Amino acid sequence: MEQSVSNDLDFEGWVCPMPLRSYPNIVLGHGGGGKLSAELVEHLFLPAFRNDKLENLGDAAVFNLPAGRLAMSTDSFVVRPLFFPGGNIGELAINGTVNDISMSGAKPLYLTVGFIIEEGLALSALGRIVDSMAAAAAKAGVSLIAGDTKVVDKGHGDGVFINTSGIGVIAEGLAIGPNQAQPGDAVILSGTIGDHGMAIMSVREGLEFDAPIVSDTAALNGLIAEMLAVCPNIHVLRDPTRGGVASSLNEIAQSSKVGIVLDENKIPVNPAVNAACELLGMDPIFVANEGKLLAIVPADEADAVVDVMRNHELGRGTAVIGQVVSKHPGMLVAKTGIGGTRVISMQIGEQLPRIC
Amino acid sequence: MEQSVSNDLDFEGWVCPMPLRSYPNIVLGHGGGGKLSAELVEHLFLPAFRNDKLENLGDAAVFNLPAGRLAMSTDSFVVRPLFFPGGNIGELAINGTVNDISMSGAKPLYLTVGFIIEEGLALSALGRIVDSMAAAAAKAGVSLIAGDTKVVDKGHGDGVFINTSGIGVIAEGLAIGPNQAQPGDAVILSGTIGDHGMAIMSVREGLEFDAPIVSDTAALNGLIAEMLAVCPNIHVLRDPTRGGVASSLNEIAQSSKVGIVLDENKIPVNPAVNAACELLGMDPIFVANEGKLLAIVPADEADAVVDVMRNHELGRGTAVIGQVVSKHPGMLVAKTGIGGTRVISMQIGEQLPRIC
Repeated sequence: MEQSVSNDLDFEGWVCPMPLRSYPNIVLGHGGGGKLSAELVEHLFLPAFRNDKLENLGDAAVFNLPAGRLAMSTDSFVVRPLFFPGGNIGELAINGTVNDISMSGAKPLYLTVGFIIEEGLALSALGRIVDSMAAAAAKAGVSLIAGDTKVVDKGHGDGVFINTSGIGVIAEGLAIGPNQAQPGDAVILSGTIGDHGMAIMSVREGLEFDAPIVSDTAALNGLIAEMLAVCPNIHVLRDPTRGGVASSLNEIAQSSKVGIVLDENKIPVNPAVNAACELLGMDPIFVANEGKLLAIVPADEADAVVDVMRNHELGRGTAVIGQVVSKHPGMLVAKTGIGGTRVISMQIGEQLPRIC
Repeated sequence: MEQSVSNDLDFEGWVCPMPLRSYPNIVLGHGGGGKLSAELVEHLFLPAFRNDKLENLGDAAVFNLPAGRLAMSTDSFVVRPLFFPGGNIGELAINGTVNDISMSGAKPLYLTVGFIIEEGLALSALGRIVDSMAAAAAKAGVSLIAGDTKVVDKGHGDGVFINTSGIGVIAEGLAIGPNQAQPGDAVILSGTIGDHGMAIMSVREGLEFDAPIVSDTAALNGLIAEMLAVCPNIHVLRDPTRGGVASSLNEIAQSSKVGIVLDENKIPVNPAVNAACELLGMDPIFVANEGKLLAIVPADEADAVVDVMRNHELGRGTAVIGQVVSKHPGMLVAKTGIGGTRVISMQIGEQLPRIC
């Protein structure tokens, strides 16, 4: 059969022209699954993200894992502006999903990336974003193994939205989850709060400070690995992103059916963040962080955990900020600076749209 | 310590009002990580998608898998309009990622979902989309185990974009991939082409036919399981979505370094799809499908595979449409209806923006 077909054809002298196409901006065709899509993959994504699993370019990436418990997570990023002091949407997307996976105690391994690009985005901007994604992935020790690109017509997107999803493996013996907090546990915070949210807001509002506010975006899996090495008995890990420390601790209190009492004086806040919050009428406890974590651990292991955290570059400002109690289950309460107490409930909506 | 704190507080008679908030449309706060976000999860997503892994509501979903090879995939969906003849963006997003995972020979198990919603979307529309996602997931036998919702301001999105990512397990002994096609193999197609793309286009262009064109969106994992049961030696599986059969076969030819020869007469096309394509100046071989697959199998096993496909509801129109050859590696060639041959290369951009 093959013979009979090829006999009909003469391939001598055929030419398959493949002109170099140079577009300064994304066009709809870059999302069409044709040659332009293929060129974007070949000339932009593959060189940045290259690894053996991605290179196969099938519909799915294939890899081996040992038997056991896995953690999987997804997050979409719609932050505006795309570039901000301390980072951009690309590294935010990598670090965010690395962190979500890590908060289950898992070691993150593989990520997927989905781009939804608005027609007209400068290819140079996409290139910078992709490069910093690759750098962030390398720093966190994860591989990007599958991807997808869609282009939407101008006026129906906003530069680029990025989804990252990922998977990690959980070591045997860990039992970390939002429902694991127990009365008596210590509540530990890895550093200052509100930096990411106020970095974004200060750009949007044109605020200027002597020391500019810089996003804290960072991958926390390295820090967590060191914490687990000294205390495998950590009860809860949580990165306080949207809704800030207040929302995260409210969710944990509700999920674990415990109360949480904070000592507000103990919560570290950068002076510039405090100033920006006062100007804009915000409370840093509700403001998003992208490189901080909350850990809830047995009280008698708190010192060891705090020690190892303070010795890590991402945990220099670690503090014990409160404790878990059996009273008022589901409720977060703060002892204020002037000796009173207040209930900190979740906010209805959000202070800061499109912060991540 | 706990005692000393709770002694300061009197919780008797506290009231935590939680009014029922009724919004007919999505507002920015639904993506803010506060109470509105929590209500969306509790009253819309959880009831539709409920399972024990999702219910934990941690940063990541946790589950067990046996050791072995896994397949992981991601896809974002930006189809316009959101509702079209034969389906909507929600079931498209489920079926699309189920299919991408299945094309590696994997049995899809778990999916994550990321919504990027434009402010102002009717909650009733989101509800219909979510319901059909749940139905599609149930039909395909997969669980949605983690999710994320972002809201973008009006004019910076388009109703809703949906990312789905997922994971599946590959049975031992399979070696399916786009680089596995071998000269002599048969190229099998599971049914008519172009239905999904032309269903979308006929709505957009206001075309009307006696028999309306309906999207073929469907999950193909059940069909593939039956194919693998009779022929574990399948070389390539591919769902010809964006760019159609032409792009998929070009990619396979390039990846496997083989030529592919099609018999155009053998490719089934619905008459209405043909008519619509002629009206709009399109070639159905480049038009997206969302419920069809290409299988490349050893020639001597083709009959058995075709038999089992024709007995499955999603493979009634199965046909052998061509063969793999050693000549002209990387190139797709078609024998035309009038006895000639033509090279079918990938298109530069796309015929149909935002088709999936």
